[in-house]
Amino acid sequence: MHRSKIPHQYFHLPSRNNNPEKMGEAKEEEKKPLILYLRQPHPPLEQTLSLKFQILKPPSPTTPIPQFLSTHQYPSSSIRAILCSGYIPIDAPIITSLPNLACVVTTSAGLNHIDLAECRRRGVVVANAGGVFSVDVADYAVGLLIDVLRRISASNRYVRSGRWGREGRGEEYFPLGSKLGGKKVGLVGLGNIGSEIAKRLEAFGCIISYNSRRRKPGVSYSYYPNICDLASDSDVLVVACPLTDETRHIINKDVLSALGKNSIVINIGRGALVDEKELVRCLTQGEIGGAGLDVFENEPSAPKELFLMENVVLSPHHAVCTPESFRDLFYLCIANLEAFFAGQPLLTPVKCD
Amino acid sequence: MHRSKIPHQYFHLPSRNNNPEKMGEAKEEEKKPLILYLRQPHPPLEQTLSLKFQILKPPSPTTPIPQFLSTHQYPSSSIRAILCSGYIPIDAPIITSLPNLACVVTTSAGLNHIDLAECRRRGVVVANAGGVFSVDVADYAVGLLIDVLRRISASNRYVRSGRWGREGRGEEYFPLGSKLGGKKVGLVGLGNIGSEIAKRLEAFGCIISYNSRRRKPGVSYSYYPNICDLASDSDVLVVACPLTDETRHIINKDVLSALGKNSIVINIGRGALVDEKELVRCLTQGEIGGAGLDVFENEPSAPKELFLMENVVLSPHHAVCTPESFRDLFYLCIANLEAFFAGQPLLTPVKCD
Repeated sequence: MHRSKIPHQYFHLPSRNNNPEKMGEAKEEEKKPLILYLRQPHPPLEQTLSLKFQILKPPSPTTPIPQFLSTHQYPSSSIRAILCSGYIPIDAPIITSLPNLACVVTTSAGLNHIDLAECRRRGVVVANAGGVFSVDVADYAVGLLIDVLRRISASNRYVRSGRWGREGRGEEYFPLGSKLGGKKVGLVGLGNIGSEIAKRLEAFGCIISYNSRRRKPGVSYSYYPNICDLASDSDVLVVACPLTDETRHIINKDVLSALGKNSIVINIGRGALVDEKELVRCLTQGEIGGAGLDVFENEPSAPKELFLMENVVLSPHHAVCTPESFRDLFYLCIANLEAFFAGQPLLTPVKCD
Repeated sequence: MHRSKIPHQYFHLPSRNNNPEKMGEAKEEEKKPLILYLRQPHPPLEQTLSLKFQILKPPSPTTPIPQFLSTHQYPSSSIRAILCSGYIPIDAPIITSLPNLACVVTTSAGLNHIDLAECRRRGVVVANAGGVFSVDVADYAVGLLIDVLRRISASNRYVRSGRWGREGRGEEYFPLGSKLGGKKVGLVGLGNIGSEIAKRLEAFGCIISYNSRRRKPGVSYSYYPNICDLASDSDVLVVACPLTDETRHIINKDVLSALGKNSIVINIGRGALVDEKELVRCLTQGEIGGAGLDVFENEPSAPKELFLMENVVLSPHHAVCTPESFRDLFYLCIANLEAFFAGQPLLTPVKCD
């Protein structure tokens, strides 16, 4: 027991003392189901959760989980549910170290950090953020696309540097961007997020096509079973599919080369969907026209070669986040955990196969 | 006659010599109607124009026009048409110095640089860019709004500065933006541009209202005859009306104060629609939440106080421009000038009253 090393605020557990009123509170607290909290600190989320659950939380997000599990005050067998985010892997060693684990709720839409095969083998049910983030991610994807095409961030730099005032106002000083209307946009993935992106870009007069494993029924956009064909027929590729073993580096050298010189890549999916080295090479050598990237292969960092490029917009994996969606997400996570502890079906269950 | 001081390329006029073939060409050239070109140099536009017109052009956009008119090789009375942009005032002295002026074609949508009263008095017809730029401006307005709300340019700076890699990834390091969906957007002006903005923002789930001189027939958005009422009921104001004596500083202290602390101003109209000093004060003192500004009162410069603000996106009057629209505009200008010289009605005439 090394609890004294762990600051109290990380637990949200009752203090133990002999005040009878406090002991009553402590008993109330003990009735609450216990959850293992494996995500970045988030005081409002933790506060809301603590109304319904006892929260067991490592002293810092970087503490090795098995080490933490061997030192806290509860037996590992008492843990039946995990709340996690996309940043901490829920892998076989963690799952194995919790003999009674039966539920993982992730605050992410993506699932690539969870060993779903191991969950299936162990009968662990999994819930994700469902469609809570879809519209925020779609809004951001469109924002990145307008920004790259119309050079908004570059314009902002140009004005802030004082160059506009010194150099004049003509396009001979600051090159024009390119029109959205009529652009052929290829969506890689047409799930919740892809569909929301398509709906928005139609209002700008873009022409939408998509690639996915299967043709979507009832969808009028052109379907390309082959992603290179989609790329050669597109001015813009928007990467909006989940990261799986099949989709890792789905945007590779061949796709980028099919996309071509004046075209643009937007990635709001996961960094590893794109062969980042190849993307950097294509941007450096002018083999594609630009990129808007919210996600990267080695977060929290982005390739330094991109830092000085005028035709690239970089963002710290923020497409997903607005306070409004976080609020919705809190309630969804709590509802999923409550459903699990009540023996009810999850609200946003994930297929583990 | 000081023509020798003026570089030949500014004229696109035939050289005079005794080669019979060249003389034939010169005669052909002389048959072309003469136009006075009073806008920034634009080689592709000038080249296209010169197929149909003789172009008379001052040596530089800053040459005083009356001085130029007194020195070039054609009598001022030979000039019946001007092609101009929004940057050079077509005022009473210029109009008066051209006794046979009968047509002004501007490559801008805005008309605040042209003395329309003097044109009306003199019977000069005026054509503008009509709706050619509307969709580009609307796209840009939406881009600025997403950028400010979702902090895209600020994110870009955060990643490029290396801070993301050093400081981590949570919102405790980089504050979240705010969701588009459900935002109440007040449009100041619901002409071509305002309507295109509304159409786009509806796809993001924004709630649209507007202020204009009169309620627009057949429009379902809420109409506010009073702009302060619109501001108090809006999260975002988008300024998209023409600049006239009535609309100068339409966004004043009272409107900004009605808009309030967390709200955002987007201006893609004209700088002088907003009381810029007051806007800067409100931003500095946190009395409004942010701004996306493509236009300023004293272009080509923007208030330096804004250069370090994280909640502001600045752009060098570029909303209007894409090469695709310029191409459309060239043909519209030529068609307007041809219509004038053929005695036909203009394609995009402007009411001078």
